[in-house]
Amino acid sequence: MKAYLNRRYRFSASHRLHSEQMSDAENQSTYGKCNNPHGHGHNYTLEVTVAGDVDSKTGMVLDIKDLKQLVEDEVLQSMDHRFLNKEVPVFSSTLPTTENIAVEIWKRLAQKLPNGKLHRIRLYETPDLYVDYFGEA
Amino acid sequence: MKAYLNRRYRFSASHRLHSEQMSDAENQSTYGKCNNPHGHGHNYTLEVTVAGDVDSKTGMVLDIKDLKQLVEDEVLQSMDHRFLNKEVPVFSSTLPTTENIAVEIWKRLAQKLPNGKLHRIRLYETPDLYVDYFGEA
Amino acid sequence: MKAYLNRRYRFSASHRLHSEQMSDAENQSTYGKCNNPHGHGHNYTLEVTVAGDVDSKTGMVLDIKDLKQLVEDEVLQSMDHRFLNKEVPVFSSTLPTTENIAVEIWKRLAQKLPNGKLHRIRLYETPDLYVDYFGEA
Amino acid sequence: MKAYLNRRYRFSASHRLHSEQMSDAENQSTYGKCNNPHGHGHNYTLEVTVAGDVDSKTGMVLDIKDLKQLVEDEVLQSMDHRFLNKEVPVFSSTLPTTENIAVEIWKRLAQKLPNGKLHRIRLYETPDLYVDYFGEA
Amino acid sequence: MKAYLNRRYRFSASHRLHSEQMSDAENQSTYGKCNNPHGHGHNYTLEVTVAGDVDSKTGMVLDIKDLKQLVEDEVLQSMDHRFLNKEVPVFSSTLPTTENIAVEIWKRLAQKLPNGKLHRIRLYETPDLYVDYFGEA
Amino acid sequence: MKAYLNRRYRFSASHRLHSEQMSDAENQSTYGKCNNPHGHGHNYTLEVTVAGDVDSKTGMVLDIKDLKQLVEDEVLQSMDHRFLNKEVPVFSSTLPTTENIAVEIWKRLAQKLPNGKLHRIRLYETPDLYVDYFGEA
Repeated sequence: MKAYLNRRYRFSASHRLHSEQMSDAENQSTYGKCNNPHGHGHNYTLEVTVAGDVDSKTGMVLDIKDLKQLVEDEVLQSMDHRFLNKEVPVFSSTLPTTENIAVEIWKRLAQKLPNGKLHRIRLYETPDLYVDYFGEA
Repeated sequence: MKAYLNRRYRFSASHRLHSEQMSDAENQSTYGKCNNPHGHGHNYTLEVTVAGDVDSKTGMVLDIKDLKQLVEDEVLQSMDHRFLNKEVPVFSSTLPTTENIAVEIWKRLAQKLPNGKLHRIRLYETPDLYVDYFGEA
Repeated sequence: MKAYLNRRYRFSASHRLHSEQMSDAENQSTYGKCNNPHGHGHNYTLEVTVAGDVDSKTGMVLDIKDLKQLVEDEVLQSMDHRFLNKEVPVFSSTLPTTENIAVEIWKRLAQKLPNGKLHRIRLYETPDLYVDYFGEA
Repeated sequence: MKAYLNRRYRFSASHRLHSEQMSDAENQSTYGKCNNPHGHGHNYTLEVTVAGDVDSKTGMVLDIKDLKQLVEDEVLQSMDHRFLNKEVPVFSSTLPTTENIAVEIWKRLAQKLPNGKLHRIRLYETPDLYVDYFGEA
Repeated sequence: MKAYLNRRYRFSASHRLHSEQMSDAENQSTYGKCNNPHGHGHNYTLEVTVAGDVDSKTGMVLDIKDLKQLVEDEVLQSMDHRFLNKEVPVFSSTLPTTENIAVEIWKRLAQKLPNGKLHRIRLYETPDLYVDYFGEA
Repeated sequence: MKAYLNRRYRFSASHRLHSEQMSDAENQSTYGKCNNPHGHGHNYTLEVTVAGDVDSKTGMVLDIKDLKQLVEDEVLQSMDHRFLNKEVPVFSSTLPTTENIAVEIWKRLAQKLPNGKLHRIRLYETPDLYVDYFGEA
């Protein structure tokens, strides 16, 4: 039987949305307050979904402790309590929008999990705004 | 990369469930308290999902400010703080069940968004009852 | 030992805010969309707090089943799935604002509970707007 | 039009994770505190999704009162306020992990609903951990 | 300036409500399903409030890391993932109702904190049922 | 009748906790990750409570539109989407802890409201951590 296991994690980070490909006016009109020069922050909620057969011995899709360690090592250690643009190298050249952060988290976790195991990355910037990414190119 | 952007909006409205195709007794047995003659109300939560490639320049699937304006114009202005049966013309002939309100919101938004962009309408009548509609005929 | 027991209940109702003591223009400027003529609705959450000694035999401040029955009889039966202005007599002459509904619920429960037992009525009109009433005259 | 109706139910139960196919040490390392000998408990939230055409007469995918009765009869009566390992026969031989409880609830509901109507069982063990099962073998 | 700092913690436990001072029938009528012989469980949420002057050097009422350690040592280690009646000695003679668990947690924390610092223990048995205890005898 | 009206607002901001009165090591040990040099951010939720008699004409303690405007002018405009340490002058000399931000918001609102009207400022840094301030010196 194939099931989907979902687990939520949290991190707090700051970011600024400002594209080098746009003029200051265009940045301001596109990102509004998110373009403010010193950045601002969010309590991000990350929801990781892994899919797979329920192991007949353990009754589990994946050991939740292993998943916690993986998310800790690959995501939280470098992103929690950080200014994403300045402290996470990929976001010096890629804009840290919710969309791009979700894609980056997918890349980090997908390469450490068995092929096909990672099903979805859901990232909430606020309780009312979230992005889903399923690894679609 | 294709991602799914989700944004929640809220509106408060009242409605009454009473079908002209059924007898009073049948209406009462089908809708229970929802058939009470003067209507009642809910805090609806609308979640709109748009799907699409993450724009390489802006890092976004869609400008959230544009989506907000669209939902404001097409949905909130006519449904927020209204008695749906009496003030939203389509619901004088179509029952304003959660299912039908979700379908109506889909129709209004789908025709104003680029083809294929609207992925899902999720409508909560209460935190414990919600309907998803993906435009399936 | 004195403890405070809190229990939440829910009801859905519609209301309209329109004061006979004000002109139409004044009503509109005071209540905005809440003054729309056909009313609108909310999912109200009612939180009742009773205070008292923890009974040494039962370990409880009050039997939660008794409280549920009381709230059902005194509040939910007449307010749930109703248009408050039209179907709850007190609200034909008193405006059904969150403040006034909270006070009305206090009056109904206080007279059926042992003296001093009712501590607070908290009423949420939406998750972001609520009123507390402690019986202060 | 095909829509998906989702309704949440709640039950409180206790369980213990201990596999007869593993040594005590292996059980401890796999399940951690969930292996504690006397069990522990959770407030489970069950979300049932039924899919189907919106009935043109009633405006509904399914009568919510019928679904409530079904969940009450097939799930809540035997699982609510129970020690799953000891009081729900299937869980004396199958581990009551979130995955396995979700699959068991699917089996119980699927055979009582019209073919194809049941779309998803979502079971929350805590607000941050949940499993989805779509009936995939 | 005096402020009140509130922090939430979570634990999962099972309990059974059955008083030796009552007959079986009385127990059943008082506690209903909570009297089921094998117990059942909850995800408890504990909210601890400490009151005090905001330290002018640190800007804090209390170091949140110290509070976390205290709650971990005094409460979570003995109550999390436990059957309260069987594994927490005080609850072999005192009924583990929400009221009594809140009082017990107060006693444990109050004696380890500076006098007057502990302001309130709030304990949720479910999101809709919680008890407040302020140390009132 | 005296009631308490509560309204929630939200803002996103970043901050850094680093006291000039402490050494780097002491700062690190006191604030942990919150001392990271580039700051980090949160979705703050501000809950404002105003107390007063329910106006017999309007049925309200205060016009919610007026409160919204006041909070917008006095708090949100200068704090939302800002790096508090750098962009809100008071926080260049006062540490922007949750406690101090709550006190600052109290000061700003109290002087613009009728005497005694402001009852409490509640500020959530995360859903699990919040501070209450009642204006106590």
